[in-house]
Amino acid sequence: MNPLFQQPLKVVNAGLAGFAENLKQAQGDVIPLQWQPPAMGNIQAGLDLAALIAHPLVEQANQIAFERYLSAQPVLVDVMSAAEAITAMQQRKLILHSGPPIAWPEMCGPVQGAIIGAILFEGWAADHQAAERLVLDGQVDLEPCHHHQAVGPMAGIISPSMPVWVIENKTNGQRAFSNFNEGLGKVLRFGANNDEVLQRLHWMKQELAPALKQAVRQLGELELKPLMAQALHMGDEVHNRNAAATGLLIKRLIPALLSSQLPLETLQRVMAFITGNDHFFLNLSMAACKAMMDAAANVPYSSMVTVMARNGVNFGIRLSGTGEHWFQAPANAVEGLFFPGFGVDDAAADLGDSAITETAGVGGFAMASSPAIVKFVGGTPADATNNSRRMQAISLGGNPAFTLPALNFAPTAAGIDARKVADRQILPVINTGIAHKQAGVGQIGAGITTAPMPCFVDAISALAKTLPAGESA
Amino acid sequence: MNPLFQQPLKVVNAGLAGFAENLKQAQGDVIPLQWQPPAMGNIQAGLDLAALIAHPLVEQANQIAFERYLSAQPVLVDVMSAAEAITAMQQRKLILHSGPPIAWPEMCGPVQGAIIGAILFEGWAADHQAAERLVLDGQVDLEPCHHHQAVGPMAGIISPSMPVWVIENKTNGQRAFSNFNEGLGKVLRFGANNDEVLQRLHWMKQELAPALKQAVRQLGELELKPLMAQALHMGDEVHNRNAAATGLLIKRLIPALLSSQLPLETLQRVMAFITGNDHFFLNLSMAACKAMMDAAANVPYSSMVTVMARNGVNFGIRLSGTGEHWFQAPANAVEGLFFPGFGVDDAAADLGDSAITETAGVGGFAMASSPAIVKFVGGTPADATNNSRRMQAISLGGNPAFTLPALNFAPTAAGIDARKVADRQILPVINTGIAHKQAGVGQIGAGITTAPMPCFVDAISALAKTLPAGESA
Repeated sequence: MNPLFQQPLKVVNAGLAGFAENLKQAQGDVIPLQWQPPAMGNIQAGLDLAALIAHPLVEQANQIAFERYLSAQPVLVDVMSAAEAITAMQQRKLILHSGPPIAWPEMCGPVQGAIIGAILFEGWAADHQAAERLVLDGQVDLEPCHHHQAVGPMAGIISPSMPVWVIENKTNGQRAFSNFNEGLGKVLRFGANNDEVLQRLHWMKQELAPALKQAVRQLGELELKPLMAQALHMGDEVHNRNAAATGLLIKRLIPALLSSQLPLETLQRVMAFITGNDHFFLNLSMAACKAMMDAAANVPYSSMVTVMARNGVNFGIRLSGTGEHWFQAPANAVEGLFFPGFGVDDAAADLGDSAITETAGVGGFAMASSPAIVKFVGGTPADATNNSRRMQAISLGGNPAFTLPALNFAPTAAGIDARKVADRQILPVINTGIAHKQAGVGQIGAGITTAPMPCFVDAISALAKTLPAGESA
Repeated sequence: MNPLFQQPLKVVNAGLAGFAENLKQAQGDVIPLQWQPPAMGNIQAGLDLAALIAHPLVEQANQIAFERYLSAQPVLVDVMSAAEAITAMQQRKLILHSGPPIAWPEMCGPVQGAIIGAILFEGWAADHQAAERLVLDGQVDLEPCHHHQAVGPMAGIISPSMPVWVIENKTNGQRAFSNFNEGLGKVLRFGANNDEVLQRLHWMKQELAPALKQAVRQLGELELKPLMAQALHMGDEVHNRNAAATGLLIKRLIPALLSSQLPLETLQRVMAFITGNDHFFLNLSMAACKAMMDAAANVPYSSMVTVMARNGVNFGIRLSGTGEHWFQAPANAVEGLFFPGFGVDDAAADLGDSAITETAGVGGFAMASSPAIVKFVGGTPADATNNSRRMQAISLGGNPAFTLPALNFAPTAAGIDARKVADRQILPVINTGIAHKQAGVGQIGAGITTAPMPCFVDAISALAKTLPAGESA
């Protein structure tokens, strides 16, 4: 005991602030404990959490779900129209959007603008007013991409004639889809819907997609996990930064395109479009992540998060053990840097399906691989490695397919465990672009945000109710 | 004084080992000082070093040389045959090799093999024996690339009909040249000279070089420093790893090639060759570095190192203040990993002009940007950042054009000061491939080596002799 009392005392006060007063008056060094009760202090949720923690059914289910996620082999196998890929689109006028379900009147500006644009693009209406009337009359169904094995960045709009990437998980044969990336500037995903935007979408459908379909056929199949893994060693986190991954994709596409018998002018336009857009790979990354997470879905009792997505108003998550149910809460603010002339008052709420990358252990979870992104969103490389390390505390394990050079090639933290999020009060970190709240203005910044805690607390309570009778709290 | 004597004493012994005996017997904690006298303990060299350190003429000269290096703007401007670019080749049978000057009988296997290959490629002789006779009869001049503003990796062979990249430093109008990268496997730069090698060289001359000449014309000019800077943020150190830089180059070349009116078959072969070789950018990186270092050359009194190069036997350096003089010593061993089936006995000595990259502050000096390379050569990411930090101790400054994300975007250490190397006993670190000692076997490993100290000590003494009378030691 002697050495303890020979050094100056450092006291941690875990009780009421008043407990520390006497010590402070005696010049003592007192640090108040930064502690909040788990599950946001909600007593029922706390009991639900206690029922789930270390529960053998949950532990076993998580092992199965995590193993299915790890063993997924997402492969680019085809390019199709959305209507070919998504059968529901063959039966009714259906437009998909990002995030959890939301009704037209509640949607944010960029999503409404993008839906109007998609209706014009499909030729279902001749002008904006007619397009909006169609929606208000209930003649167009609006549903989440995630309800149809699909994902889309920002507004995430997918309409029947748009081309989609077709990703197949070779382990279970299931497919996932995403739209094509339009580049920066005035684009549908930020709610722009003028002639420039619609003409680009028509060109993508008529020239880009058929060319890429031929190239993919030429390639046979393209395994996406090794490509993403390589990009993680080249400064990408394959969410907000895809410069290396796009380059690696281009290296694979060029020889295939050059042997595809396409006219030279087509090749020129296709390659100019792809080489001019460092985000081109993003939608492939998202669809690959969707395929990995769908593999882990629907394992009863599993507390593994399989979806995180934003519709510009609410943030929604799904757990493996609660199937298709969404747990939603208002989206947290984005902390980041704004482009000159814009500020926080101009920003739409957090938006897009792209948080599927964080759900799959890349993006913000792999930030240590992408110091340049941290600088872009206003942090330091040390923040990046700290974020990647912190995510280990809320994850089921590491993904050895995705390693981080800056952490001595440690695997990325992967498989978010909703129990750990609620218990440890550490929120999943998400890299994101910031959209202007008005349709069509476009990206006005980038930053880091978190998934909101109520989603996880509600999900925990719902999962606890699925436990065999008498076991839930 | 009290606190010092209240804690257990830790003693550093800076004198004879015997001084520490008493303390050790009294259970004292004694650390012997790891110290060697500067300039390898050579008294005259030590005096020369003392004369140069903090000498105003040297300080001023280094500032000028370093500023010229920093302000160099190497730009890819053309593709030519070596004979077009290097006037001496128009007057006589001249073949260039890597490193400092060396006579035929002393050359290592790979360099001799590559020279024989170049003679056959030029059609100066019909077979190996005739080619060797030509050399022995003195009918072919063998000179360092560096004597002709050129650089080449490994054997570094440049003969008149070979194509070269033409790099121009836009700041002073001077040019630098390097040959084209042949890829891996059986290649001339490792001393292979069979039909496969010669046929590839003919194809590179007849189809690849004209295509790239057209592409470069189409591009106008391509600034190399920003491209290298970007690659440093993508896991390259642009010496042993050029995967990202090659990808960035490809992104620039494709649109230019597609609008160059070349036959489709040519485009297919050219793109297959370039996309199949992650080292394709290396020779451009080297020529860009050569242009930067030539800018700093020939500043009287400057102790800045402008060349480090290896001929497979000796390592040679040049200082700015001693102009074209080479300071040579036997090359240090390479510490690294060997490919399966090979070991240290199979290795040629350190070889090639590629250490121009380290001389220019990238390569081993920028290792912190390329943890994957450190793993490849048998180290850890921590070694990488340590190497990059250690090089700051022997450099004139940092190059703000080249920043290292892992060191919070600190500039790379650049401008090796021969005084600091000799004084601080820290050798410049070099990333390198390991060639088999027999011609044509190829690369058998990769590792890290250092420039040998005697080069720097001799250079210091020679530089001291250039000081105004009465000022040298």
